[in-house]
Amino acid sequence: MDCIFCRIANGEIKGDVVYQDDEVVGFRDLNPQAPHHVLFVPRRHVATVNEFDDADATLIGKLVLAAGKVAADLGVADEGYRLVTNCNGNAGQTVFHVHLHMLAGRVMRWPPG
Amino acid sequence: MDCIFCRIANGEIKGDVVYQDDEVVGFRDLNPQAPHHVLFVPRRHVATVNEFDDADATLIGKLVLAAGKVAADLGVADEGYRLVTNCNGNAGQTVFHVHLHMLAGRVMRWPPG
Repeated sequence: MDCIFCRIANGEIKGDVVYQDDEVVGFRDLNPQAPHHVLFVPRRHVATVNEFDDADATLIGKLVLAAGKVAADLGVADEGYRLVTNCNGNAGQTVFHVHLHMLAGRVMRWPPG
Repeated sequence: MDCIFCRIANGEIKGDVVYQDDEVVGFRDLNPQAPHHVLFVPRRHVATVNEFDDADATLIGKLVLAAGKVAADLGVADEGYRLVTNCNGNAGQTVFHVHLHMLAGRVMRWPPG
């Protein structure tokens, strides 16, 4: 498996990891778009959101809950944060291992890109 | 309860509903930011993502899975779509009932707002 997010999740490549549990790993984006910009990935390789099925509902929710926990740890939960997931080309997905962006530390604009 | 998204979800206010099941309702955004812009809400009132706890993981995942199903129904799953959730002021959350935006039908820019 030559997936960079699998390799960060399993420790083969060093990421700036800020969260991990049995199923989810969170690490800082190398090209941050906000003062705090963390990516949350499932340890299991899933290419896009389209590949999730109903049995994955809990895992998906855990990505969001992990983001909320890190936002709280960083002290930005109350002022706010944006969660973003890109699926495929029109959305700008570039790494084909599902990841949830958590952006915080500045006012976010609308539309969201 | 004077929450507009509760009232759309329970049918008290008519929304342009494109998805519903026992726990989730999806309806078109009144101020669309893309050719397809659908909001997915839990029927249960939850103000922000911060109010979810670990027991809600499956419900959160169902919001995302519903968005994926609607993207497939609309024929935009392969070309792509962006999922966005805003939590509190810095993110621009304006309705305090958790909602997941699904935007599709155009190329999305980066950063996401």
